[in-house]
Amino acid sequence: MDRFVKQKKHALNKLNVSIRVGDVDKEIIPLLNAINSLQDYYTTSSCAGRIQLFNDLGSKIKNYSIACWHRKVNPKEVVKEVKAVSGILYFKCEPPILHIAARDSEAARRLLIAARESGFKHSGIQSIKPERVMVELVSTESIDAPIMDKNKKLVSDNYIKHLTILANKKYAKAQMKIKKLEKNLKEL
Amino acid sequence: MDRFVKQKKHALNKLNVSIRVGDVDKEIIPLLNAINSLQDYYTTSSCAGRIQLFNDLGSKIKNYSIACWHRKVNPKEVVKEVKAVSGILYFKCEPPILHIAARDSEAARRLLIAARESGFKHSGIQSIKPERVMVELVSTESIDAPIMDKNKKLVSDNYIKHLTILANKKYAKAQMKIKKLEKNLKEL
Repeated sequence: MDRFVKQKKHALNKLNVSIRVGDVDKEIIPLLNAINSLQDYYTTSSCAGRIQLFNDLGSKIKNYSIACWHRKVNPKEVVKEVKAVSGILYFKCEPPILHIAARDSEAARRLLIAARESGFKHSGIQSIKPERVMVELVSTESIDAPIMDKNKKLVSDNYIKHLTILANKKYAKAQMKIKKLEKNLKEL
Repeated sequence: MDRFVKQKKHALNKLNVSIRVGDVDKEIIPLLNAINSLQDYYTTSSCAGRIQLFNDLGSKIKNYSIACWHRKVNPKEVVKEVKAVSGILYFKCEPPILHIAARDSEAARRLLIAARESGFKHSGIQSIKPERVMVELVSTESIDAPIMDKNKKLVSDNYIKHLTILANKKYAKAQMKIKKLEKNLKEL
């Protein structure tokens, strides 16, 4: 068994455990299965996209999410979660992201073409090793809006509801891209 | 002269013309020069980061910028430019981005390490050809906040001013990363 196949086996075992304990976004599982069914690829991590309230303290180590939804969310739910934080509270919508190991540069190239055609425009190769090329696929649906600065609310509840409705639309668009990529992969 | 050297010569000629006509952000020119002074690399495009008002019509072909600043901007200037548009008007802060051709995968790998260490965390390889590997370096400073929906203003002028002050801080941080990358490249 070559090194790529060995690492793929290990990655799929880990994925199956994650799926069992509910750590994988359900919406993205069919796409992960489609990728893993191809012999030149395996997935190492993924997110189907998310809507979150994020406390930015200016340091990646200290920043944290105060609420996070990997689904469409009721605007009232978001308003309810908004509270004073130490730094800046951001409303964020983040696009789907996948990390995929490809057997070689040629396999990575084919995957990138299919991904970009499916709307994953911010995609690229992260690293190249003899046994595998790591590819990151990222889509484009994003919102980054500050809504509180320490104890000071910067916007109205209506604006937060508006942000949520917009984020839900972006989330729905992202799910369509996930399905499109799954379809386009069949041509790989 | 090999193909890489030939293409580099062509790219540098184009860059010099762009600099002369003022099409290149001044803040990023020292970094471009540092990269182009290394024999294994040349730059093909760049942006030092920007703050803009962007009319999102839901289609990349139709979307357009109604105002754009490649510098810190006075909050009052931004408020003055806000006007009703056909789609959603976004206030956007976008990070520096560079496209760089590297001679081979090993040169690309070294560049990616220096870039990530300098804070260009969203960086990767876009394409691989026999004569060159295209690398995209992207930093992380971003704001994407809807501020008008057609004729309806969603936020106060004070919020727009707050966004601008925050964007100016992010812009300043990005400029520090540009300087840091320039320094780190000397070790390549």
